[in-house]
Amino acid sequence: MSNQNIYDNQEFFDGYKKLRDDPSAANYVVEKPALFSLAPDLNNKSVLDLGCGYGENCIRFLELGARKVTGLDISAKMLEMARNENSSPRIEYINKSMTDLDDITDKFDVVFSSLAVHYIEDFDKLARDVYRLLNPGGYFIFSQEHPLTTALLNADYWTRNSENDIIHYNLTTYTVEGERKVAWLVDGVTKYHRTFSTIINSLLGSGFVIEKMLEPVPGSDIMEKCPAYKRYIHKPDFLLIKARKNS
Amino acid sequence: MSNQNIYDNQEFFDGYKKLRDDPSAANYVVEKPALFSLAPDLNNKSVLDLGCGYGENCIRFLELGARKVTGLDISAKMLEMARNENSSPRIEYINKSMTDLDDITDKFDVVFSSLAVHYIEDFDKLARDVYRLLNPGGYFIFSQEHPLTTALLNADYWTRNSENDIIHYNLTTYTVEGERKVAWLVDGVTKYHRTFSTIINSLLGSGFVIEKMLEPVPGSDIMEKCPAYKRYIHKPDFLLIKARKNS
Repeated sequence: MSNQNIYDNQEFFDGYKKLRDDPSAANYVVEKPALFSLAPDLNNKSVLDLGCGYGENCIRFLELGARKVTGLDISAKMLEMARNENSSPRIEYINKSMTDLDDITDKFDVVFSSLAVHYIEDFDKLARDVYRLLNPGGYFIFSQEHPLTTALLNADYWTRNSENDIIHYNLTTYTVEGERKVAWLVDGVTKYHRTFSTIINSLLGSGFVIEKMLEPVPGSDIMEKCPAYKRYIHKPDFLLIKARKNS
Repeated sequence: MSNQNIYDNQEFFDGYKKLRDDPSAANYVVEKPALFSLAPDLNNKSVLDLGCGYGENCIRFLELGARKVTGLDISAKMLEMARNENSSPRIEYINKSMTDLDDITDKFDVVFSSLAVHYIEDFDKLARDVYRLLNPGGYFIFSQEHPLTTALLNADYWTRNSENDIIHYNLTTYTVEGERKVAWLVDGVTKYHRTFSTIINSLLGSGFVIEKMLEPVPGSDIMEKCPAYKRYIHKPDFLLIKARKNS
C-alpha cells in the first residue's frame, strides 16, 4: 500500500467522518449532485468505484439499477465502515489502491471516482488502466479537487477585507504541476496538481473521448443559507469530467 | 458592424500595432508557436482565419501549403494593412464580423482563430457556425485569452511584495460569466468571460470532438531573458483548443 493511505490515520479519519456527517458539506450540496448528473442509465450495468470510501455512492449505484458494484479503497478503516453501513450481496468491497489495478481482469460498463484522483501521482497510468477496464462504449466519470485549488503551494487561500469578506483568491503556481503537501484535517496530506489541459490531454491520450466537463457552483439559495459558499463566486471547488471509451 | 470593432479606433490601433511590432510580445513567443503546433498538415487545404487582423497568419498558412486562405476581420484598418503587407492571389480578405457568418457558403478544411473569440458574446453560435463551415474531418483551432485572465472584473491583476515581485494572482469572479469592460491600450474594451467547462461543453454541444487543449508557458530561457514572463508560473495568458468535426 502506498503512503497515500492517509485515511487509515485515526486523527484524519475522525475529522473526515465528522465532515462527511455534515449535510451542508460541499461534497453533498455541490459535488455529489454534479457527479450523479453525469451518470448514464445504470440499469443492469456493472460499476467500479475507485476510492469508494465508506460506500455511500456504491449503494446509490445499486439503487439506480446497477447489476453489480465493485468498490475499491486503499483504506481498511473506510471499507470496514462500508461493509457495516452500506453492504449488499451485489457490492464487493476490495481493499486496494487505485494505483494498483493490473491484476483486475473484470470489465466494467462505468467507472466512477469521487474526489480521489488528486491523490494519484501518475494520472496517465490511471487513465490507461481505467480505459483497459472499461467495456466498449463505457464511461469514466470522476470528480476531483478543482485545479485552481490543487495549484496552491501554501494554505493562504483567500485575501479578505477588514469585514472578513473575500476580496480575491490568492492563485499561485497554477502552471507548476506536481506534488503539494497540504494541511487538511491533519498536516502533510499529499496531493498532486495538474492543469486543466494536462488532465484533458491525458484522457485523450489514453483513447477517451471527452463528453462533458463541469465546474459546479451551488445555487444562490444555498449561498444565502451558507455564506461561506459565496467563495464559489471566485473559484469552484470541484472539477468533474465524463469521458467515453468509444470502441 | 458590431460595437466590438475596437480595432478601427485610431488610438487602440496605434497601440496595438506597436505591441505587435515587439518580437518579445507574448503572442509571438507563446501564443503563435502553440497555435501552429496544433495545425494539421495544411497541404492543399482550404483555410478560414476568423479575426485575421493584418494577415500575418494567413501568409503562414499559405507557406505551410494551404491551397486557399480566407481572412475575415471586422476592422477595415486591419484589412488595409493586411492587403498592403500580406497579400497573395490565394488569399481573400473579407471585412466582416465573425458573429455574422450566415451568408458564407464555402466550406473549409481548417478554421483558425487567433486571440479573437473572447470578444464574441455568443460562443455557442460561433461554434455552431464554424461546425457548419467545416468539411467532414475538418478542424477548428483557436486561441483565446485564458479564462483566468478574462475572469477578472477589475485591472488589479497581481499582488506584489515590496521588491515588486509577484506573490499571487488576484483571481476574482471566475464562475460569473459574461461581459467584462477592461482597459487594454484604451479604456472600455469589451470582452466576454467563459469558464473552461462552458467553452468545452459549447464545442461538444455543437458536435465537435476535443482533440487537444494547451495552456502554453514560455521556456525557462525566455523567463530568464524577460523576467515579466515569470508571471506564467502562476497563470497562463492563453488557452488553445483543437477540435474536430468527425462526420
